[in-house]
Amino acid sequence: MIYLDNAATTKPNARALDEARAYLTERYFNPSALYREGFELHLELKAAREHILSCLADPAAFELIFTSCGTEADNQAIFSFARRGNAVTTSGEHAAVANPFAELKSRGVEPRFAPLNADGSVNAEKLLDLIDDKTSFVSVIHVNNETGAINDVNAIAKAVKEKNPRVVFHTDGVQSFGKLPYRIGKDVDLYSLSAHKIGGLKGVGALICKKKLRLSPYLYGGGQEGGLRSGTENVFGIKTLEFAALEKYGGRREKYERMQELRRRFFERLDGSLFVKISSDSSSPYILSLVARGLRGEILLHRVNDRGLLIGTGSACSSNAKKRYSRVILACGVSERDADGVIRLSFSDETTEEELGEAAKILNEEARSLSEDMQ
Amino acid sequence: MIYLDNAATTKPNARALDEARAYLTERYFNPSALYREGFELHLELKAAREHILSCLADPAAFELIFTSCGTEADNQAIFSFARRGNAVTTSGEHAAVANPFAELKSRGVEPRFAPLNADGSVNAEKLLDLIDDKTSFVSVIHVNNETGAINDVNAIAKAVKEKNPRVVFHTDGVQSFGKLPYRIGKDVDLYSLSAHKIGGLKGVGALICKKKLRLSPYLYGGGQEGGLRSGTENVFGIKTLEFAALEKYGGRREKYERMQELRRRFFERLDGSLFVKISSDSSSPYILSLVARGLRGEILLHRVNDRGLLIGTGSACSSNAKKRYSRVILACGVSERDADGVIRLSFSDETTEEELGEAAKILNEEARSLSEDMQ
Repeated sequence: MIYLDNAATTKPNARALDEARAYLTERYFNPSALYREGFELHLELKAAREHILSCLADPAAFELIFTSCGTEADNQAIFSFARRGNAVTTSGEHAAVANPFAELKSRGVEPRFAPLNADGSVNAEKLLDLIDDKTSFVSVIHVNNETGAINDVNAIAKAVKEKNPRVVFHTDGVQSFGKLPYRIGKDVDLYSLSAHKIGGLKGVGALICKKKLRLSPYLYGGGQEGGLRSGTENVFGIKTLEFAALEKYGGRREKYERMQELRRRFFERLDGSLFVKISSDSSSPYILSLVARGLRGEILLHRVNDRGLLIGTGSACSSNAKKRYSRVILACGVSERDADGVIRLSFSDETTEEELGEAAKILNEEARSLSEDMQ
Repeated sequence: MIYLDNAATTKPNARALDEARAYLTERYFNPSALYREGFELHLELKAAREHILSCLADPAAFELIFTSCGTEADNQAIFSFARRGNAVTTSGEHAAVANPFAELKSRGVEPRFAPLNADGSVNAEKLLDLIDDKTSFVSVIHVNNETGAINDVNAIAKAVKEKNPRVVFHTDGVQSFGKLPYRIGKDVDLYSLSAHKIGGLKGVGALICKKKLRLSPYLYGGGQEGGLRSGTENVFGIKTLEFAALEKYGGRREKYERMQELRRRFFERLDGSLFVKISSDSSSPYILSLVARGLRGEILLHRVNDRGLLIGTGSACSSNAKKRYSRVILACGVSERDADGVIRLSFSDETTEEELGEAAKILNEEARSLSEDMQ
């Protein structure tokens, strides 16, 4: 099996699981318990918080709360701060931001959506045009989950705040965390991340929040996470995230550059008469969005599935989406005909050149065969 | 080590973990993915949903959505249906219900709290007095997490609906799920449960909801769980819950009766001049709440901790609670002096008679020694 759907989810990191196993089997206590074994877990959570935060932010300026997923982190950020006037985002957001924004309308906040460039990045100038005195909140995805386009969120946040310094600026970092050599800039207030996209477990995420900003609780109860996220802490999941993140951030730039090179060579192996790139060369190398010309992406997906190659079409997170075309791909200016042929290949640092060689071969053969069938 | 804090959390069930391991290591796919390996997980989640539901409810009348914890299930139930007029609950609720109820006030809904009997059960007559034409929602904890008192929620729900048939009735079943031989009655609309209290993992819960009732989404995003709980499904956690639950419900009544007998003999072994019961004989046998007379429960907890015995004081879920006395214990009519001496012992089906014999010995010796120190 060749797994090229790492933007949907990743195989849990075996070393991180091994390191964290004790929290599943022996150190299973409730971190709120008063006996020593419980309190020690409280300290372990504190260490996890600091270690993860240090990977990409200044721990003196930011804090981190653990959530149950990236979606929860996005929801909590949005509903905490998009409370009046208007809130601005992009047409390239994951559903975990796009759908809470749609919900804002019923809560008396006007949602505004900035258009995209052809590669899926936001048109920053037009985004700035949407900011006014009444803008309370801005959310810009860091790495587009369908095309890999990178938004320079540090620079965009700076420009947004020059226009309206009272704006709270959030970025969905789910596809950048553990992948981009990036540190959260001083104008970014909130950053969401997810564990299962980097070798951690499903059911774990985090929201990084500038100190002094007052998040609203998203779950009310026992008062865990400083009262901002009640519910017994998922110690095993959190420690697995910690260990996976520390490994991911070791030699981050080198791994990133290796992936750039692998993706470049992979695309060269693809038959240019069959596949056209949507992703630009400057996008995250972990994602490659393609149009299989004249084909239906979903049919190609099933064909290569039969040969052991696992790929995506759009966002796998859009569960049961009834829409045929990806809203984000259309927002890139792709025609409906081409949108039908979109496939997404997404890689991890464990992806090898051999796998990519074999994947290119399978994709070329199956796309060619499908094209011939249609003639 | 003797672990008698199973109401705070339990050791994950090793057999359930073994059975579920493949979902952690090999079948790690996103259940929303379109290839076969993803879709198969979608079916696995469906099976888990049906199997868990069948343990305690009629699958024709109820459905189940997976959440990230019992707290989330409670919050979603309350904020979905307590939307107008007043909402009635008890003074014996876990913080995951009590704190959302406190929050209702700021959302224009009047929270009402029914008083408790001495054992921690709700005074059902006084609860009914609080129900009127404007009551939209009622929540009654099934098994009190501090004293083990059982509320006959099926009967209470029936009486509530006789008074106002439009009420939506919820019960927090976190301490009853997998423990009581119980099936959800036809007047109960919503039931919350948690995985990690019965050998499942932290970070997994569920809300059982009567079909036709319209829950509100709690997280907006990719549309998982029928649009009611977005976020990539925690397949490993959910399958572990399924396997742990199926094991728990096998021979439920026999295990329950065994525990009644074990708890009875355990209490007999305790020195009656040192310990007084708060829990009644009719409470859940998995919980025993005691007053260590004239002592501070927290000091006794640390003393027995040094001898390898792990016990609770109040609810371990009340993380960082600054209050010295448990609000629930005071609501039972316990004096502040006695409330200071409360300890909670909580058992699992894996607890042995030998462990309880040793635990009684340690408790007697340490309580006696502490009493002597204080004279």
